[in-house]
Amino acid sequence: MQATDIQWSKAEKEIARAAFERAYEREIQALVKEVRERAHRVGEVDDLWTLHDFLSARRHALEGKYDYRYSVLIFVFAQLVQEGWLELHELEGLATDKLTKVSALTRMGCHF
Amino acid sequence: MQATDIQWSKAEKEIARAAFERAYEREIQALVKEVRERAHRVGEVDDLWTLHDFLSARRHALEGKYDYRYSVLIFVFAQLVQEGWLELHELEGLATDKLTKVSALTRMGCHF
Repeated sequence: MQATDIQWSKAEKEIARAAFERAYEREIQALVKEVRERAHRVGEVDDLWTLHDFLSARRHALEGKYDYRYSVLIFVFAQLVQEGWLELHELEGLATDKLTKVSALTRMGCHF
Repeated sequence: MQATDIQWSKAEKEIARAAFERAYEREIQALVKEVRERAHRVGEVDDLWTLHDFLSARRHALEGKYDYRYSVLIFVFAQLVQEGWLELHELEGLATDKLTKVSALTRMGCHF
């Protein structure tokens, strides 16, 4: 077990997992909605490949972003809060130092 | 100029270009329709990536298939006729030897 792992209690891990999955589900549902709208507007070949490029980019970004390693989870949560997929209060129950870090990173407007 | 080029007269090139573009437009419009239907059915993340994989495969296949080099055009036309994107009579005006080749390749049920 890595040093970073033991800083997360069982209760914190449950809160983190639930928040992580909630944010993922929200972002996916928003993407589903956008893809349907974009597909509806597709009229010619360039639109098709633009939709394809869009899906390629989103897939790549999502696979990189939703990284559930405890060593990076604070940064993941800060990004999700910054982007609006998660609200800070949904992380309540995590240790204060973690919440402070997420909050500080979010306020700093980091570009992840 | 390659030997294969001089076998196509100016009139034949015009017929070939028009047929090629007609088939392409038909296939693209069918694909647009299918993508819209598939996008409408997308409900969760796996459906999104299935749509993405589908678009990747179709894009790759189309880029390979619509090859307007005179050295391969007989084979391209045979494939398009076989797949239903073009009808033989739309190639009328090409020299008889070309039409015979396209027709023979189509009847042979070649896998291109």
